[in-house]
Amino acid sequence: MTKLEIFDSTLRDGAQGEGISFSVSDKLAIVRALDEFGVDYIEAGNPGSNPKDIEFFQRVAEIPLQNGRLCGFGSTCRKETRPEDDQNVLSLLGANTPSVAIFGKTWDLHALQVLHTTLEENLRLVRDTIRFFKERGKEVIFDAEHFFDGYAHNPGYAMQVLSAAHEAGADALCLCDTNGGALPDAIADTVRLVCVRFPGTRIGIHCHNDSGCAVASSLLAVRAGAVQVQGTFTGIGERCGNANLSTILPGLRLKMGMDCKGDLPNLRHTAMKIAELCNMQLPSSKPYVRASAFAHKGGMHIDGVSKLSRSFEHVPPEAVGNERRFLMSEVSGRTTVLAKLAGVAPELEKNSPEVAQIVARLKELEHEGFQFEAADASFELMVLKTLRRFVPHFSLSMYRISGEYPFPDGDQSASAMLSIQVDGTAETTAAMGYGPVHALDTALRKALAVFYPELNKVRLTDYKVRVLTGTAATASVVRVLIESSDGDTTWTTVGVSTDIIAASWQALTDSIEYILHKKEAAARCR
Amino acid sequence: MTKLEIFDSTLRDGAQGEGISFSVSDKLAIVRALDEFGVDYIEAGNPGSNPKDIEFFQRVAEIPLQNGRLCGFGSTCRKETRPEDDQNVLSLLGANTPSVAIFGKTWDLHALQVLHTTLEENLRLVRDTIRFFKERGKEVIFDAEHFFDGYAHNPGYAMQVLSAAHEAGADALCLCDTNGGALPDAIADTVRLVCVRFPGTRIGIHCHNDSGCAVASSLLAVRAGAVQVQGTFTGIGERCGNANLSTILPGLRLKMGMDCKGDLPNLRHTAMKIAELCNMQLPSSKPYVRASAFAHKGGMHIDGVSKLSRSFEHVPPEAVGNERRFLMSEVSGRTTVLAKLAGVAPELEKNSPEVAQIVARLKELEHEGFQFEAADASFELMVLKTLRRFVPHFSLSMYRISGEYPFPDGDQSASAMLSIQVDGTAETTAAMGYGPVHALDTALRKALAVFYPELNKVRLTDYKVRVLTGTAATASVVRVLIESSDGDTTWTTVGVSTDIIAASWQALTDSIEYILHKKEAAARCR
Repeated sequence: MTKLEIFDSTLRDGAQGEGISFSVSDKLAIVRALDEFGVDYIEAGNPGSNPKDIEFFQRVAEIPLQNGRLCGFGSTCRKETRPEDDQNVLSLLGANTPSVAIFGKTWDLHALQVLHTTLEENLRLVRDTIRFFKERGKEVIFDAEHFFDGYAHNPGYAMQVLSAAHEAGADALCLCDTNGGALPDAIADTVRLVCVRFPGTRIGIHCHNDSGCAVASSLLAVRAGAVQVQGTFTGIGERCGNANLSTILPGLRLKMGMDCKGDLPNLRHTAMKIAELCNMQLPSSKPYVRASAFAHKGGMHIDGVSKLSRSFEHVPPEAVGNERRFLMSEVSGRTTVLAKLAGVAPELEKNSPEVAQIVARLKELEHEGFQFEAADASFELMVLKTLRRFVPHFSLSMYRISGEYPFPDGDQSASAMLSIQVDGTAETTAAMGYGPVHALDTALRKALAVFYPELNKVRLTDYKVRVLTGTAATASVVRVLIESSDGDTTWTTVGVSTDIIAASWQALTDSIEYILHKKEAAARCR
Repeated sequence: MTKLEIFDSTLRDGAQGEGISFSVSDKLAIVRALDEFGVDYIEAGNPGSNPKDIEFFQRVAEIPLQNGRLCGFGSTCRKETRPEDDQNVLSLLGANTPSVAIFGKTWDLHALQVLHTTLEENLRLVRDTIRFFKERGKEVIFDAEHFFDGYAHNPGYAMQVLSAAHEAGADALCLCDTNGGALPDAIADTVRLVCVRFPGTRIGIHCHNDSGCAVASSLLAVRAGAVQVQGTFTGIGERCGNANLSTILPGLRLKMGMDCKGDLPNLRHTAMKIAELCNMQLPSSKPYVRASAFAHKGGMHIDGVSKLSRSFEHVPPEAVGNERRFLMSEVSGRTTVLAKLAGVAPELEKNSPEVAQIVARLKELEHEGFQFEAADASFELMVLKTLRRFVPHFSLSMYRISGEYPFPDGDQSASAMLSIQVDGTAETTAAMGYGPVHALDTALRKALAVFYPELNKVRLTDYKVRVLTGTAATASVVRVLIESSDGDTTWTTVGVSTDIIAASWQALTDSIEYILHKKEAAARCR
């Protein structure tokens, strides 16, 4: 059976989604998550378009990837120039990825009225740019922009562009429905024709969801002969988003029996993690990966599932790392939690009372708004606390924060004082900060460094705030995620409260307790 | 051309969605909205399953409908009973709707192992129940439950069930993919066979979105001969939802050229209204109807749309009551800004010094971390300020916030005091809050309401915080996005600072300045 290639464009086309804006460390974390899940290609952005990307491409080169191949993205060279004189082409080369995706016009209307060039010159741009990268040893994927519209309007010219790319040495021809306007039957028919026209060439499909059909169109394109599926893991992308890989993958594997990479039992976890890194919330109804996907509400359905699960479930929830939920009753969780416990308390058995306790505590916390998908360190502490194996390294007696406007002299507008206890010894201190959370964090580190000088190496590397209920706005529950690093490892913690300061405090304490606990455990093993 | 029937099940299958719970007045309002938009059938619930429904069926009978036909929903009679002795059948009859949808088993596995009856008895239930309603003058739609699974496992029996329904007088046979597991090509092939087998009979399609293909499957089923499309207007429903009619309808009308009812230019408005009645938020990426559906971010796309809109848009946004938006982003230039300025200062020309000033100011602010793509209101204020057309409605003299732990009595842990000036008059006040931002917001509204009582209607509907640089964490720059609403319209503003309080303050002030400015401008036009 032909092996399918999964090509993720979260960092490139996904970044065009409304409200999406990645920091360099977000991008690196997404690359790691995609590689760990096991996609074939990780499209890493357009090196010419953004100065932040230079730093990213330098740092991503240091990550040893197990599964994913990095792919840069760029346009054909500009009209009336040669690739070697085009700054964007040179930036893409400079990004030094093993693969490049080059997009070019295939709709005659675009060549003539948007690019304002001739059909012949457009063919030259495609040919010369692909040749340029092939001569420099790159794998080249040609993204045939607006291919389906182009083919509908002028099939002869659209095919001519593909031929130009093919003759110039493109390793794969990816057919893009850039507007997202084509319907699945037209897409399947066109893919079939292209596959016949270019036998032995890898044909890819790249759909957008403007017609609400991106997943179906991708699946039908594979049925018609496409071997590379482009999309974004959580479906983000410009306008209505790109084809959602977390929906397509289970369809390909579990329903169509196709051969493609990807750690499917880790699907839900990976989608949640990437969504969190995008600072977006996946709708609870998202197929396969979200909470409602296997949630049964109708009484008859619950009865049916209980009698014969396949009678009401299209795939087994555990195949995609999800779980069945009955909305009337609280029956769930144990298998998932057990899988996660393996790293913390591997001796626990599925039916032990401890596991039941942990599941119950987890449900309570999730009900309050905690979410441990992206906060492994807080999950571990919660388990240790529930098992009564947690010994706190300090306790808080009091804090007081304040802020004012006009800002006092200097740019630090906030202050915090606090008092903590370590083994019966009190330490009271205060600090200024750029805001109340920063002041509190600075004061806490200052107080703790008296007892634990190793904390001097720890620093916070990311801080995210999400409001959970949209109705009461600033009075809503907020969830704070904090990422910390000591240079070697990185860990994430979570806090939830109606008060942003209190939520931040929880996440800060978890971060510090976690690393102190880890260091002690490591010392014991030595 | 065959006329298609649009059948909405928001009140029945939609009510199975997680978190959905309708009051009687919600239901009546949804019936009115659907009728006004112009669907053919409004499925109004299962009169046997819920006592609230008795009141609803009485009250809905008084609404004079222009377009929609009410349809009750119920099961075939129970095994070993006659319809006239079955309480649920009698309740459905009592609901007194002109049409009824009767669902029955078509998958042999279900008849045998879920219903625990014989294949022959299952046929009798279908036959007798349909006959019962036909003899009492009802239009009967037979919902063939799990039809596609049934057909895949035992095609002969699945067809026998349809024949039984047909012979008993069913007016339409609706094929249901109850699990949502079938893929679009299998659905289309099966629909085609059924249409051949029952020529002249109305065949319907009812899809669920568990495979992410409900829209595509519905469209392809129509291509294969189905003439009735069942779904829910906003896609709500059990698990991953039902086929989304607001996505299917434009596909049928604008792309496939089908003849079906529905006031398409009112599509967006109707979807938003129904979503609000469901107390749910449609994702901003929802095709056709939501804010991102025609929002362009990539510089090249914006350039392309400006040159030739159909080159980058699959349908004209106004055809579905939506509008084109240009998002500001790091990759955008003068064309983007100009396109966006059209709504604020349409008299400005591309090469005017004012546009150059605005672009320069935008770049400065983006460099500081502002992001206007999701903050149209702040963008508009920035333009007015740069053009010196902005007159502030108040100024801040000072604020002071504080928070503490242990929390004081009650759960409001923070307080804020502030002093503002309006036309030389000072107002000083203070408020408690769930956190410092909430306290500040409450105090500001309290102070301003003295001068601008219309602000009492304004409330914050969403609050998002994002940290911009991953290196200094709590000392990093934070960006706050605030969404506000006065019941009629919604607007978004942005603030950036190292201090979360200061960033929130900026976004809060922008929100208030924006709505006061809009109201004045509107008053001037009257």
